[in-house]
Amino acid sequence: MNASTNKRFDVAEYMERMGQNARVVSSQLAGLGQEQKNHALECIARSIETQTGKILKENARDMASAECNNLSPALKDRLYLDEPRLASTVSGCRQVATLPDPVGEMTQPVQQPSGLEIRQMRVPLGVVGIIYESRPNVTVDAAVLCFKSGNACILRGGSEAFNSNMALANCIRKGLIDAGLSTHCIQLIETTDRAAVDCLARMDQHIDIIVPRGGKGLIQHISEHATVPVIKHLDGICHVYIDGDADIQKAIRVAYNAKARRYGICGAMETLLVAESIAPKVLPELCQQYHDKGIEIRGCERSRQLVDGLVPAIDQDWTTEYLDAILSVQIVDGLEQAISHIETYGSGHTDAIITENPESQKDFMRRVDSSSVMINTSTQFADGFEYGLGAEIGISTDKLHVRGPVGLEGLTSQKYIVSSDGLTRD
Amino acid sequence: MNASTNKRFDVAEYMERMGQNARVVSSQLAGLGQEQKNHALECIARSIETQTGKILKENARDMASAECNNLSPALKDRLYLDEPRLASTVSGCRQVATLPDPVGEMTQPVQQPSGLEIRQMRVPLGVVGIIYESRPNVTVDAAVLCFKSGNACILRGGSEAFNSNMALANCIRKGLIDAGLSTHCIQLIETTDRAAVDCLARMDQHIDIIVPRGGKGLIQHISEHATVPVIKHLDGICHVYIDGDADIQKAIRVAYNAKARRYGICGAMETLLVAESIAPKVLPELCQQYHDKGIEIRGCERSRQLVDGLVPAIDQDWTTEYLDAILSVQIVDGLEQAISHIETYGSGHTDAIITENPESQKDFMRRVDSSSVMINTSTQFADGFEYGLGAEIGISTDKLHVRGPVGLEGLTSQKYIVSSDGLTRD
Repeated sequence: MNASTNKRFDVAEYMERMGQNARVVSSQLAGLGQEQKNHALECIARSIETQTGKILKENARDMASAECNNLSPALKDRLYLDEPRLASTVSGCRQVATLPDPVGEMTQPVQQPSGLEIRQMRVPLGVVGIIYESRPNVTVDAAVLCFKSGNACILRGGSEAFNSNMALANCIRKGLIDAGLSTHCIQLIETTDRAAVDCLARMDQHIDIIVPRGGKGLIQHISEHATVPVIKHLDGICHVYIDGDADIQKAIRVAYNAKARRYGICGAMETLLVAESIAPKVLPELCQQYHDKGIEIRGCERSRQLVDGLVPAIDQDWTTEYLDAILSVQIVDGLEQAISHIETYGSGHTDAIITENPESQKDFMRRVDSSSVMINTSTQFADGFEYGLGAEIGISTDKLHVRGPVGLEGLTSQKYIVSSDGLTRD
Repeated sequence: MNASTNKRFDVAEYMERMGQNARVVSSQLAGLGQEQKNHALECIARSIETQTGKILKENARDMASAECNNLSPALKDRLYLDEPRLASTVSGCRQVATLPDPVGEMTQPVQQPSGLEIRQMRVPLGVVGIIYESRPNVTVDAAVLCFKSGNACILRGGSEAFNSNMALANCIRKGLIDAGLSTHCIQLIETTDRAAVDCLARMDQHIDIIVPRGGKGLIQHISEHATVPVIKHLDGICHVYIDGDADIQKAIRVAYNAKARRYGICGAMETLLVAESIAPKVLPELCQQYHDKGIEIRGCERSRQLVDGLVPAIDQDWTTEYLDAILSVQIVDGLEQAISHIETYGSGHTDAIITENPESQKDFMRRVDSSSVMINTSTQFADGFEYGLGAEIGISTDKLHVRGPVGLEGLTSQKYIVSSDGLTRD
C-alpha cells in the first residue's frame, strides 16, 4: 500500500467517524427546547468574546500566509478579522438566539371525512454540511443557524483561513461544553485534504444536505460529485428592465442603485434592459451617472446610437456575471422582448421591472421565473435579512425545497402527525 | 461506427428533442389559467372514454405477451385493464379537475421596516419526468397531476405495458389537441431502449425533477445515476408499537388492520413492537387473528415464549419490507426501546403508537423521525387521498422539498415577489 492510498483511507475513516458522531447527536439536538438552544448560543457568543485576542492572533497568521501566497486584495479583505468584525459576528450569534425557533411548530389540525386528524410538525433536516471559502466568520454564522434549527453540522472552511477557523471552532466547542452539550453538535473538519470534501458530499447515510458557499467553481464541483442533496447558488445574472411606462426619475434612481451600490454581491444588476420608447429619456442621464462612478458600459447597437462612448457588447456579455464595475445594456422593443431576453440569458436569481403600469407589473411577475421578481425595487435588496428571515445561510437558485434566501425554515422539514381514536381502514 | 453506438446516439438525440419541447412548452403551461387546464382535463377524460375499446384491445396484446413471458400473477394483475378500471382512471382525471389550482397562490404581503413588501407566489416546477412500471393507468394519473400543477411532463412506462401506454398517450394527445394545446405538454417516451431512462435522469437543463414509481431496484438505479433531483420513495418498513398504556381492544383492532387489510402497499405494517407489560393481554389473541388470516409470524425470543408456533425471527427480519403475508414481532421493555428499534431498523416512512398515555404519545410523536407518525391509527392510512391532498403522485421518504404523500403542491415551487415604490438600498 503506498502513502497516497494510505492517506486517502485515513481521511475516509476520519470523515466517517465525524459523520457518525453528527448523526448520533442529531436526534438529541432535535429534541432540545428553544431555551436550551438560546442558552448555548449565548455561551458560544461569550466564548468568542473572551478569546478575541487569541482569534485575532491566529487570523494574523493566516493573513501572513495570504501575503506570502499573493492572495488578491479582495480575498485578503474577506479573510481579515479585527475587533469590529468579530463583534459583529458575536452580535449575529445573539441575534439568531432572538429568532423564533421553527422546530416543533405544528399546523392547525385538519379533520378528514374518515375521522383522521392531520397535522404537520416542523422538524430539523438532521445533519447539514457547509463548505465555504475564505471568510472565517462563516464558521460561526453558519454553525449557529444550523444549531438554532436543530441540525448537527459539519463545517469545512478554506485552507487560507485554516488557523482562524480552528480558533473559532475552539470557541464554539468551549461554548457547547459550557452549555452542557456535546461538541459533536458543531464539528469542523480539521484537515485541508481535499478528499475530505468529496467524502462529505457522498456520505448519504450521515449527511442530509450540503450547502456550498463560495465561488462558482466550488459549487459546480460539489454539485457534480455530491450524492447528498445540495442547496445550490449558481449565477446571479440579474436584470433590471425599464419599461416604457416607467417613472423616469424612479427608473434612474433604482437602476443606478441596482448596479452601483455594491458590485460584488449576487443581487447586483449585470444587464440593464430599456424599452426603446423611453430610452432617450433615461439612458443618457443614467449612463452619465454610471460613467462618473467609473462603471464600464457595454451596449447593444441601439444603445450605442443613443449614447456616445459605450463599448460594443458581444454575445458573451449577456451571460456574464461580472461582479465588477461593468454593465451590459440592451434596448428592447418592450415588455415581451425583455421577458424573452431574461428567459434566454438570465440565471433565475433576481430580476426587476420598473413601470407604473399594473398590467405590465403583473405580466412580468407571473412570467419571469426567478427566485425573486422585483417591482420598482433595486435588485440589491435580494437578501434574507431584507426579506425578514432574520438570517441567511445562502440564496438558493434551485426550485426544489427552498428558493431564494434560505433562513432557519429552509434548514427544516415537516412530518405528518396523523391521529384518531383507533381508526382502521376499510 | 457500429450499430450499438449508432443506436445510443439516436436515443440521446430523441430524448434531447423531447426535453427541449417540454422546456419550451413549460413556460406557456405556467401561464395557463385554472379554467383552461380543467377544460383540457375534461377533453382528456372524454378522449379516453371514446377510445375505451381501442385501449382494451392494446392492453390485451400486452396481457398476451405477459402470458408468454410468464409474468407473475401480481404483475399481470397490475398490468390488466378492463372497463371498470378505465372508468376509474377517467373519473380520477375529472376529480383532479375539481381540485384547487395551487399555481398563482400568493401569500399575504409582509411589510418590512425598509418599506419592502414581501410576498411569495406559487409556481410550477417546470418539467417533471415520471418513470414507472407495469400499471398503465399511471400514464394518465401522473400526467394529469403534472398538468394540473402547470408542469410539462415526460412519461416513461414499463416495456410490459408498452401497447397500453401508447394507446393511452394517444388519447391524451387527442385531448390536448381538442383543448387547443400543444401535445408537448404531456409526452410519452416511445422507445423501450433503457438508455432513454438514463438520458432523462441526466438532462438537468430540461428536466426539473424525476419521480420514479416502482420497485426498489428501479428507484435505486435512478437515484444513483440521476443528476436531476429525484423525489424518492425507498423502503416502507412500518412499525406499530403497542404501548403498556394501550387500550387492549383498540390495540388489537388497529394492529390487525395495519397488517391484514392489504399486504402489498408501502403503508402496511412489517414489524409489530409490543411492550412487555401488555404483551400477555394482546399478543395471544392478535397472533390467533393473524394466523386465521394466513399470516406467518416471525417472533423474537420473548414473544415465542408467550405464543406457540411462531417462526424464530432473525436479524434480517427487522430490516425486510415483506409486502407479503409475513409479520415480525418484537417484545420491548417499553417506549424507549421501541423508539430505539424504529431508529435503528425503520425506514422513516410511517410508524404508529397505540397508547392512551398523552405523554407517551407526545414523546413518540416528537422523537420518531418518519414522514408520518400515527397515534392510535392504522398505518394503512398513509396515502395522499386520506390526508386530504385530493391526489397523490407518490410518497416521499426524503426530507427535502416534500415529505410523505406528494400531491399537487409537491409539484410546485415558490418565488419571492418584492415590491416598493422605487426603493433603493443604502
